[in-house]
Amino acid sequence: MIDIALKRFFNFVVLAILPFSASSQSTNLTSYVKPLIGTSKMGHTFPGATVPFGAVQLSPDTDTIPYAIDGTYTGDVYKYCAGYQYDDPTIVGFSHTHFSGTGHSDLGDILVMPTEGKVQLNPGTADRPEDGYRSVYSHDREQAEANYYSVWLEDHQIQAELTTTTRVGVHRYTYPESDQSHLIVDLNAGIYNYDGKNVWTVVRVLNDSTITGYRQTNGWARTRTVYFAIKTSKPFKNYGAQYLDRNVQYKGFWRKFDQEDNFPDLAAHDIRMHLDFDTDADEQILMKVAISPVSMRNALENMEVEVPHWDFEQVVKEGKCRWETELSKFQVEMLTEEDLVNFYTSVYHANLMPTIYMDHNGQYKGLDHEVHQASDFINYTSFSLWDTFRAFHPWLNLVDPERNSDMVTSMLAHYDQSVLKMLPIWSHYANENWCMSGYHSVSVIVDAILKGVYQGDAMAALEACVQTANTRRYEGIGAYIDLGYVPDDVNATSVSNTLEYAYDDWCIAQLAMKLGQDDVAKEFTRRAGSWKNLFDERIGFMRPKDSQGNFREQFDVLDTHGQGFIEGNTWNYTLYVPHQPEELMEVLGGRAALELYLDSLFTMDLPDRYFENTEDITREGIIGNYVHGNEPSHHVAYLYNLTASPWKAQERIREIIRHQYHNGPAGLGGNDDCGQMSAWYLFSSLGFYPVAPGDTYYWLGSPLVKSASIQLPNGRQLQIKASNQSEDHVYVSQVRWNGHALRDFKIAHEDLAKGGELEFVMSAEPVIAN
Amino acid sequence: MIDIALKRFFNFVVLAILPFSASSQSTNLTSYVKPLIGTSKMGHTFPGATVPFGAVQLSPDTDTIPYAIDGTYTGDVYKYCAGYQYDDPTIVGFSHTHFSGTGHSDLGDILVMPTEGKVQLNPGTADRPEDGYRSVYSHDREQAEANYYSVWLEDHQIQAELTTTTRVGVHRYTYPESDQSHLIVDLNAGIYNYDGKNVWTVVRVLNDSTITGYRQTNGWARTRTVYFAIKTSKPFKNYGAQYLDRNVQYKGFWRKFDQEDNFPDLAAHDIRMHLDFDTDADEQILMKVAISPVSMRNALENMEVEVPHWDFEQVVKEGKCRWETELSKFQVEMLTEEDLVNFYTSVYHANLMPTIYMDHNGQYKGLDHEVHQASDFINYTSFSLWDTFRAFHPWLNLVDPERNSDMVTSMLAHYDQSVLKMLPIWSHYANENWCMSGYHSVSVIVDAILKGVYQGDAMAALEACVQTANTRRYEGIGAYIDLGYVPDDVNATSVSNTLEYAYDDWCIAQLAMKLGQDDVAKEFTRRAGSWKNLFDERIGFMRPKDSQGNFREQFDVLDTHGQGFIEGNTWNYTLYVPHQPEELMEVLGGRAALELYLDSLFTMDLPDRYFENTEDITREGIIGNYVHGNEPSHHVAYLYNLTASPWKAQERIREIIRHQYHNGPAGLGGNDDCGQMSAWYLFSSLGFYPVAPGDTYYWLGSPLVKSASIQLPNGRQLQIKASNQSEDHVYVSQVRWNGHALRDFKIAHEDLAKGGELEFVMSAEPVIAN
Repeated sequence: MIDIALKRFFNFVVLAILPFSASSQSTNLTSYVKPLIGTSKMGHTFPGATVPFGAVQLSPDTDTIPYAIDGTYTGDVYKYCAGYQYDDPTIVGFSHTHFSGTGHSDLGDILVMPTEGKVQLNPGTADRPEDGYRSVYSHDREQAEANYYSVWLEDHQIQAELTTTTRVGVHRYTYPESDQSHLIVDLNAGIYNYDGKNVWTVVRVLNDSTITGYRQTNGWARTRTVYFAIKTSKPFKNYGAQYLDRNVQYKGFWRKFDQEDNFPDLAAHDIRMHLDFDTDADEQILMKVAISPVSMRNALENMEVEVPHWDFEQVVKEGKCRWETELSKFQVEMLTEEDLVNFYTSVYHANLMPTIYMDHNGQYKGLDHEVHQASDFINYTSFSLWDTFRAFHPWLNLVDPERNSDMVTSMLAHYDQSVLKMLPIWSHYANENWCMSGYHSVSVIVDAILKGVYQGDAMAALEACVQTANTRRYEGIGAYIDLGYVPDDVNATSVSNTLEYAYDDWCIAQLAMKLGQDDVAKEFTRRAGSWKNLFDERIGFMRPKDSQGNFREQFDVLDTHGQGFIEGNTWNYTLYVPHQPEELMEVLGGRAALELYLDSLFTMDLPDRYFENTEDITREGIIGNYVHGNEPSHHVAYLYNLTASPWKAQERIREIIRHQYHNGPAGLGGNDDCGQMSAWYLFSSLGFYPVAPGDTYYWLGSPLVKSASIQLPNGRQLQIKASNQSEDHVYVSQVRWNGHALRDFKIAHEDLAKGGELEFVMSAEPVIAN
Repeated sequence: MIDIALKRFFNFVVLAILPFSASSQSTNLTSYVKPLIGTSKMGHTFPGATVPFGAVQLSPDTDTIPYAIDGTYTGDVYKYCAGYQYDDPTIVGFSHTHFSGTGHSDLGDILVMPTEGKVQLNPGTADRPEDGYRSVYSHDREQAEANYYSVWLEDHQIQAELTTTTRVGVHRYTYPESDQSHLIVDLNAGIYNYDGKNVWTVVRVLNDSTITGYRQTNGWARTRTVYFAIKTSKPFKNYGAQYLDRNVQYKGFWRKFDQEDNFPDLAAHDIRMHLDFDTDADEQILMKVAISPVSMRNALENMEVEVPHWDFEQVVKEGKCRWETELSKFQVEMLTEEDLVNFYTSVYHANLMPTIYMDHNGQYKGLDHEVHQASDFINYTSFSLWDTFRAFHPWLNLVDPERNSDMVTSMLAHYDQSVLKMLPIWSHYANENWCMSGYHSVSVIVDAILKGVYQGDAMAALEACVQTANTRRYEGIGAYIDLGYVPDDVNATSVSNTLEYAYDDWCIAQLAMKLGQDDVAKEFTRRAGSWKNLFDERIGFMRPKDSQGNFREQFDVLDTHGQGFIEGNTWNYTLYVPHQPEELMEVLGGRAALELYLDSLFTMDLPDRYFENTEDITREGIIGNYVHGNEPSHHVAYLYNLTASPWKAQERIREIIRHQYHNGPAGLGGNDDCGQMSAWYLFSSLGFYPVAPGDTYYWLGSPLVKSASIQLPNGRQLQIKASNQSEDHVYVSQVRWNGHALRDFKIAHEDLAKGGELEFVMSAEPVIAN
């Protein structure tokens, strides 16, 4: 079943010891990490080099610009969220910032490309790479590992190698003999670029091997500035710049300076540069690129602190060591080698975002455009909260609580800096981009507090949650508060908004109860039931309702377009009441009705036309009408636990794992969404899942591992054991926690976090209820 | 001779005690300050409120935008350098930053206009003010004083009053009764504006009476950002914004927020805002606007420190008190009341620029785009050095040396931050705009060191001077070093550049000699003679020469266009050898030849066509072919001292004073040029002038004062006495320093700076040499 492409993909893997276990003796867990997983089609992961939660993601871009400078649309922007598509024939260059697995995009800062021959400052096209600086490449000569990426650039006969530290990208290029060797630094390039995205660019060539500057953009982040510092291991003999907008040069003073040739003081909207070298055969030139959210000075300091040398191998090694530290928290025994790759690559993908957004000296740029000093936490950015509140942040609460606590602190800092007085919705690089719906910071904060992970000022956190939830002007919240639902005529995604607000409000109520804030608890408990207002008993589904209280007449229960939902249909979204599943079951008609609903969901046919042109929903991500490639249904399989047939949960979970997670570039059935898809895999493969964060119980499913030993903080260990595990033994006949049988398919976070052994007894036959 | 307009102009002056002396008892010297002088035609001064060297110049703009948003040219940009032209019928609004007397421009930040009636967010035109927010006004109801400006806005029936502290503009508007009273805040407006100048704008409405933000522009300053904080004394009931470029709003999320109505989180290229109020009849609303080069936070802090209250009168009073302090350094007795106004208004104009560019906490933005902390100096910006090295900085060396020392420190900081390793040429707001020629920072620095004013690291200063003078890539310097002149085929202003470089190089040589740097002294003494290489003996003038050493064939000695000079003809520029006037006299043919040359210069006819379209040269600024309205000839009248007829210097100096300096809006014959025109007046009216800064001797002329008592640092006093002074007694028969006769029409800075009495005995008859 392993085809040629997959073999090639495995080419450089040093496989671990049979039988498919990563023993504690192993020091080579990074070999299971395959950064190319998810780089084909809709995974939207990037294959390049990075360290855990690193600020720099140094990765090849195969195309990034949906619009040409002349305004013509050049291709499918959506697929270039991470800058790289596995099937593309050319590499444009290597840029320093990338989201992992998102469904909208930005970044791609400071694109570098080594070239040989005449200077070309335009990127060229995939059809005619020879017209620009880009190059044809082949996966045969491409290597993607944790914190190491290399590729042979055919057009330039140059070997490219990349590695990173937290804030520094390190490049190593091996050139042929030439007096026309170059490094192209394209400061115009960017992901989701278009004419006018670059607001301003400054470049200062400090000496023959040092450049600083910044790039200010108006993209998904409305006002974003990335400062940088560049050093080359060899002095450039010459350099030059191309201004795409000549009129902003030092005006009228062209007579005073040639501003393109070796002119060190550049500023314009759009700048591309070339650095020129003489090279001997196989001569290696290294380049370090440090970034900062604050200043060029800080970028230089970041470089000086993190990579004060030119030892490329040392940087690779230190980064791999950091990955090994993260990966070796998990010692797992699995059914197949492919499972080990899936597992550790999922750990890898769940250790990329949010990224560190803070200089080595603790300074960072806030949402208020001011420079702040982080005194006692690490500041993070890029919170894709509609995705990550579901499983990613709960995952950190279990396995990396200190980090999640810092993320909560970062979100509360965002709130403090917000002129709208709102917690982040989808925030990146000191900006709010308002993507997707709900106010799911609330879920992350409440879950972290209730699980004892965030130990800061809980009352202040509650206030931030309440204030955010009461932002009447935001996406129908005012009407939602007044009417108990978002009206269809006020908001285009009124139903999914209502459902998500209701869940978030329930989270707020849980925190308020814990803090003894009875009035708040009462109010938000009331609001938590708002989902009921949009359930149409006549059809048994959630349905849009207008301000007058009338359900919408024209309504298609299968369509994901224009029906009042964001990226989903009512078949999926009707189940989105994670905080009150029993009440939902009730309105759906009881246990049997829920089971029938779920059976139908997983087995019915959803024709393409119902989800065509809906981002993040593809045929690959679908089982029946269940959409795993997008997030709203991630808890759904576990709902079978409420029915008379929990074995169907077990069956479907194993099916989803087998259907949706593969080795190989096309291994992900949907956007990884900043680690959410991977966190689902990790939880589910260990046998439990946080159906409703804010509830401190996990729901049990069907583990994929044969065994797992998870290192928790303070030296505690969580052991997972799946007795009698096999490919066919997907059913759970018994579950024991520290030897005691569990009967309701739930286990408390508090128990797991203390450490102990969770044992599943697997079976080939389901346990059928009477 | 006082016409109606002038009477109106004097309307609000409280005249001082006759006979035209400003006695030491007077506490009302500010009443002699007429900010409207120079606001008509070419003076390019602004009439608004400011404090000495204040960062804020809060002043009315009568038109500022040469290009409409649609790209059409709307008028004469040059005349709007200071935003205000006296003859204009309408006021657009009041903005916070203005140059004084420049010949090119920028700034005009944060334009505020109070209006009544429907909200109009476009400025309208002078022809149809009713189409926009601007208003008709009349000089009858306009009042311009030191740190106070008021005007009646006819269209809105609103009285506007303005005052300032160093970093805060304070507005007071008296409204009619209305439920449609507004404050328009136009962040798109700017001086020398054009479509695309605004690079980015951010606005944050913190509460119902506080706004912060910044405005980033690409104008004369290539990369400039002004941060601001605004507070109103009364909460606005409503506010809104107009985006001129809607596409940069939070994209695709219009459904989530109405981003124009009461939306507090704005960012775009171009933003205009309105704040709405209900007002009773005669209700006053105050507004404070603080600026910062560093951050919104700093702007708020500047406001809190400088104006923590709402007492408008107190701010006026404190500012006037600071002006009184500056003015009262000079107690003068003069011939006419008009002379007193000219004198104290000159002192005023010589106390406006360069401006303080540093927050209250000492932070400022450097040329390197980094935030710096000024530890032991005040940082200044806006150095119009081609103008101000001549008399303005020497003036400060005498009367305000500590301030000039800080300006030198600011220039050296600029050098340290320069990636080109150059001292400022024409720098403003952490930018270099490269305007005009020479590297005259050198002159200012050397003069300040040789006069004992700058006591910092002289060797470091010398290094900065040498490094700047050796910037081969800059405007012909490389060829100048190699050939001894800037070739005509290399640079369009090759002759004036050569002359100015030669003078600057002589300054460097003087400093090198003082510091015992013999090699540097020798090299730059050699370079100081470069002017000789362009003197064409055949015609007796400086003349362009090509790289092969051939003088240009086609050459017009009267034309100011295309002849190798910047803003001047060879008749004027040939005399620009201030450092070696005797040698110049020699090549011109000796004493008699120089006298004949000067006689011709002052008496010949220069037809308009020779200077039409040359900025800063107008009929008003010309006597014969002598151009006082522009700077290169400012030392020329004093050159008569070298001839047998120093009395001609005395006669011409008095003539220039009478011809070029008047009360009234059209009182200046050319751009005031950041105080240079005024500094010429101040020196010359006291009877001496720094012909060649770097030389520590002043040349004597003919005083205008009857007496003057000048307060020097450390309690010393310089007394000037002009015995037998009268309108007709323009000639000097004797000069005595502390009672000892001076015979060579020179006096040392060292002597004057110690204090003492300089007595001129005036006469109706010239002293004719034998």
